[in-house]
Amino acid sequence: MQIGTLTIVGVGLIGGSIGLAARRRGLASRIRGVGWKQTTLDEALARGAIDEGTLDLKAGVAGADVVVFCTPVAGLVEQVLTASTYVSAGTLLTDAGSTKAVFVRGVEGRLPAGVDFVGSHPLAGSEKRGPAHADGQLFEGRLTIVTRTPQTAAAALERTTAFWQALGSRVRVMSPEDHDAALAVTSHLPHLVAATLAGILPSTLVDLTATGFRDTTRVAAGDPNLWCGIFQQNREALLTALTRFRERLQQFQEALEGDQADVLMELLEEAHRIRTGLPSNTGH
Amino acid sequence: MQIGTLTIVGVGLIGGSIGLAARRRGLASRIRGVGWKQTTLDEALARGAIDEGTLDLKAGVAGADVVVFCTPVAGLVEQVLTASTYVSAGTLLTDAGSTKAVFVRGVEGRLPAGVDFVGSHPLAGSEKRGPAHADGQLFEGRLTIVTRTPQTAAAALERTTAFWQALGSRVRVMSPEDHDAALAVTSHLPHLVAATLAGILPSTLVDLTATGFRDTTRVAAGDPNLWCGIFQQNREALLTALTRFRERLQQFQEALEGDQADVLMELLEEAHRIRTGLPSNTGH
Repeated sequence: MQIGTLTIVGVGLIGGSIGLAARRRGLASRIRGVGWKQTTLDEALARGAIDEGTLDLKAGVAGADVVVFCTPVAGLVEQVLTASTYVSAGTLLTDAGSTKAVFVRGVEGRLPAGVDFVGSHPLAGSEKRGPAHADGQLFEGRLTIVTRTPQTAAAALERTTAFWQALGSRVRVMSPEDHDAALAVTSHLPHLVAATLAGILPSTLVDLTATGFRDTTRVAAGDPNLWCGIFQQNREALLTALTRFRERLQQFQEALEGDQADVLMELLEEAHRIRTGLPSNTGH
Repeated sequence: MQIGTLTIVGVGLIGGSIGLAARRRGLASRIRGVGWKQTTLDEALARGAIDEGTLDLKAGVAGADVVVFCTPVAGLVEQVLTASTYVSAGTLLTDAGSTKAVFVRGVEGRLPAGVDFVGSHPLAGSEKRGPAHADGQLFEGRLTIVTRTPQTAAAALERTTAFWQALGSRVRVMSPEDHDAALAVTSHLPHLVAATLAGILPSTLVDLTATGFRDTTRVAAGDPNLWCGIFQQNREALLTALTRFRERLQQFQEALEGDQADVLMELLEEAHRIRTGLPSNTGH
């Protein structure tokens, strides 16, 4: 894949990493960043994540061949629809948001003729923010989910797949709904649980935390605004995942209350088996 | 502090790390390991964590000046009581177990005259096991809790404190009950929650986990036997912590069900504030 102008809307950790990876791999002739604060654009420029930056969405996306939106999911639909009126036919629009159904359904069928849109979600990131934490190898060996609906054009899907592969990622195609149900379990529920654990820590016990507590709650350091939007956009799937979590929690509680070592062992062994079976991907 | 013979009962990750730290800091003239498998003793010897190893508890503790028990909490009381009959007056017995009340109360008042016992818990460790993962710097900058009860001799408390400080640790003195209530929140509840999350992951979603899921569930890779014993010994404090956790989880659920962005934001912001306020200790 070779892109003329790649525009990244939102040059934070993910957007900045896309810019660095695209440069590293020679994917685009020109990398343009759209931001909301000049300081962020300046930082992305200094890091080499973009060649040029602008605060003007219209100027940023005009003439782009590929536009990737790396902004919080809460305002993403409106942003993509607005940007779509500034681009030419043949432009591919995609994103990096953590929820897909609300977004994809909100954009589909509302774009100008010839403008393609395909939803994406690279399963890579960090609780950190901003271009200072961008990493050109962030996507290497990671999985990006690209969404397909009955309305998705085959050529646009191929182009989106090629885009993420060019950044070093593996790609899996799923429906937006399947994505959201899966991520509710693998990402949104863990965040909710981590926030619950962190939220009930009394200040008197801060000194008595060790790495167990810190790892288990690490994601709770993520941006509350961002995660509030994710929770709201995926509330039904998240509530379903939460119900499953509470059922298992109830099993633990009953085993504890009844001092049933055999049940506790079964529960702990199943968790141990599943957790030790996960790929030991140690990157972001 | 200077010890003649230091005996470490159980030369796994914690016991092996004590041996390496003691050697590194010249704390003991002789470091003896007691194990249950010759291969583990051989590995600890090869790592330099001990000078000599034995499978015989009696031979291992005879003549020791300090004995530290680094074995699972489940059989610890019996082990300490047995060992106490083989040591001389003036010997200090301590441990590294994750629960304290059951253990300390089970040992106190049942030791031969002149044999001192003080409970300890270094807040350092890993989900890994065995002397291969031992680390002579494991305790540096970490906190070790040393327990005091009305029966604890002041000199023994001082000696135990000096022992952990000599290994590089900071020390805080608490009652066994206060320790258990605190660790229920900072360690045992996070383990239970991580095991709950890991335990409900369907195999079809393994590929869709990223570092968020992996970090949140890391501790669930810990030894089920070890953790079953910890849960059982600290079940009351753990159930109290679990109740508090479930109340907060309920608040999250109701805010999601009612799509109350303001409540979600409050909960996420509190968690964010607490989590980002934790010391960024990145060691074990």
